[in-house]
Amino acid sequence: MIRIYGDSISGNCLKVKWVAERLGIEHEWVEIDIMKGETRTDAFLAINPFGQVPVVEFPNGKTLAQSNAIISYLADGSDLVPEDSFERAKVLEWQFWEQYSHETAIAVRRFQKHYEKKSDEEIDPHLMGKGRRALGRMELALLGNEWIAGGEAMTLADISLLAYTRLAHEGGFDVSEFPAVQAWIARCERELGLPHLHEVTDV
Amino acid sequence: MIRIYGDSISGNCLKVKWVAERLGIEHEWVEIDIMKGETRTDAFLAINPFGQVPVVEFPNGKTLAQSNAIISYLADGSDLVPEDSFERAKVLEWQFWEQYSHETAIAVRRFQKHYEKKSDEEIDPHLMGKGRRALGRMELALLGNEWIAGGEAMTLADISLLAYTRLAHEGGFDVSEFPAVQAWIARCERELGLPHLHEVTDV
Ligand SMILES: N[C@@H](CCC(=O)N[C@@H](CS)C(=O)NCC(=O)O)C(=O)O
Ligand SMILES: N[C@@H](CCC(=O)N[C@@H](CS)C(=O)NCC(=O)O)C(=O)O
Repeated sequence: MIRIYGDSISGNCLKVKWVAERLGIEHEWVEIDIMKGETRTDAFLAINPFGQVPVVEFPNGKTLAQSNAIISYLADGSDLVPEDSFERAKVLEWQFWEQYSHETAIAVRRFQKHYEKKSDEEIDPHLMGKGRRALGRMELALLGNEWIAGGEAMTLADISLLAYTRLAHEGGFDVSEFPAVQAWIARCERELGLPHLHEVTDV
Repeated sequence: MIRIYGDSISGNCLKVKWVAERLGIEHEWVEIDIMKGETRTDAFLAINPFGQVPVVEFPNGKTLAQSNAIISYLADGSDLVPEDSFERAKVLEWQFWEQYSHETAIAVRRFQKHYEKKSDEEIDPHLMGKGRRALGRMELALLGNEWIAGGEAMTLADISLLAYTRLAHEGGFDVSEFPAVQAWIARCERELGLPHLHEVTDV
């Protein structure tokens, strides 16, 4: 059985949980409380020298970090990954973009606002604009497409981007400005069996 | 023939060039000058709505962005990508870490210092510490390993990390503090047929 070390408040960790559940991969969830510094203990650093969650430990003792690398590994060969090599590259394109241009604005602002309880004045003013540009980029991609990477079925790209887009309101973002994104959130939630976090009238 | 849009000063773009050259993939290089705003023109945004280089255009008109997604696609099935699925995931782990924790410190500080000519006082003081931690993490991985992902041969993980590690001095980082990293830079340069940028006495 694999062991997933994660904090339930972290979207990066939830990606791993969702993929494991979706694919019926037996796992043990070990809750690591970031706010209590549990990623900084010697015991945890021995598992992940990067000092972050999520990290997965396999029965042979090997470990793997980086949410998007973990889910790529777990979902290898499943219907969450396109068979066509170019379509697979498009999934990766969105996942790298997520880590570079989306998470770094939306997850960061959410953490500071919702968990560190910073006021809007204390938060780097660039994060709002950067996050809104990221949501706008997703809106463009989702106009006329059900799934973010453009194919017929949900892929890892949707799961990677759902994690923090679904929680963007906790970072002060108004997702209702992006109706195609809002409808896509509900679509992903249905597909993954998650509760609907937002009121949606027209999906 | 594929067309690579890139700026020669950008490590992200050089990754694509190196992989194409290494694998003998015929390509046309279209120089895009970031400093002159050439990523912001309507013509360029039509090719890459993300507004960034690198981006590759294929003969069928399809495009692909994100340096690490592009090189994964180009190198699919080559000896730059391990056959074993877990080892492939380890390569991805380093590539996601590169974009999240390495490039965001080392490339950003280099750009501001070397190209925007900012003084040390004008640069976010966190970038130096974050970049040094990233180099320290690589040093740890390279003690006793020739290649960053731990296997017997150079992989895409080395190429992704080489891009900005090799230019870290332009960002004010002193790579000689990290001897295993310095030796690894020279090893990668040899493997890729690049000139040695640093004096190395003991490789
Ligand atoms: N790029 C990493 C990011 C991991 C990350 O930022 N983890 C955060 C929680 S979301 C963490 O562990 N923070 C605690 C710390 O840095 O000590 C991934 O995708 O897994
Ligand atoms: N995550 C992207 C980053 C691309 C990126 O930051 N490109 C920069 C050059 S290194 C760029 O095009 N900057 C110009 C701009 O943003 O207008 C990748 O790995 O390709």
